Amino acid sequence: MLTESPFPEKQKLLENELAYAIYDAFPVSPGHTLIVPRRIVADYFDLEATEKRAMWKLVDDMREYLRATFKTTYFNIGVNCGEPAGQTIAHVHIHLIPRYPGDTPNPRGGVRGVIPGKQAY
Amino acid sequence: MLTESPFPEKQKLLENELAYAIYDAFPVSPGHTLIVPRRIVADYFDLEATEKRAMWKLVDDMREYLRATFKTTYFNIGVNCGEPAGQTIAHVHIHLIPRYPGDTPNPRGGVRGVIPGKQAY
Repeated sequence: MLTESPFPEKQKLLENELAYAIYDAFPVSPGHTLIVPRRIVADYFDLEATEKRAMWKLVDDMREYLRATFKTTYFNIGVNCGEPAGQTIAHVHIHLIPRYPGDTPNPRGGVRGVIPGKQAY
Repeated sequence: MLTESPFPEKQKLLENELAYAIYDAFPVSPGHTLIVPRRIVADYFDLEATEKRAMWKLVDDMREYLRATFKTTYFNIGVNCGEPAGQTIAHVHIHLIPRYPGDTPNPRGGVRGVIPGKQAY
């Protein structure tokens, strides 16, 4: 179990009382951001309601930040809950991924790509 | 622009004042659910704060429903905002996707799969 955040708070872009946002260290696109809670919790669904609200508010704020910085209005939002769902770091993080026309040959399906063969439908 | 919901409310599983949940018509896994707002809105970020809160509350409630029904604690949560992000239906929907060990050979990365080549890292 993690006792310290694996997401360096000193690199934070925006924050509120219960959460902060940093760039993903292995971005899938320019501006790929993670929104993380201050309290160490492994699974999204184990967060308190107040923590979830603070994180979703920060997703909204970060979207404005990224829209201004990276000049796009297209985004994916995503969370992996548990190793069979692709979660590799045992501290909750919401992915906010800016998207750009042409960044992949066929974007159809988006987050359906958690199971690759099912993305396009 | 859509004037009527493309997600049949008569098939709803759970609901609250501002949102309801139905199974995805083209599920990527057993139990794949969509949480949709009652008001027709194309982009997640154009929802009112009250609508977003109602939807995220319903995600929590649906997770309990799916955990009881499909006996799994692994999930992906995801939203596609705009066609370049893979959105194919112009009415907001949050994907809640139950996951099962072995449902894909290498689940690592999960929602990072919105850009297929970047999923595993």
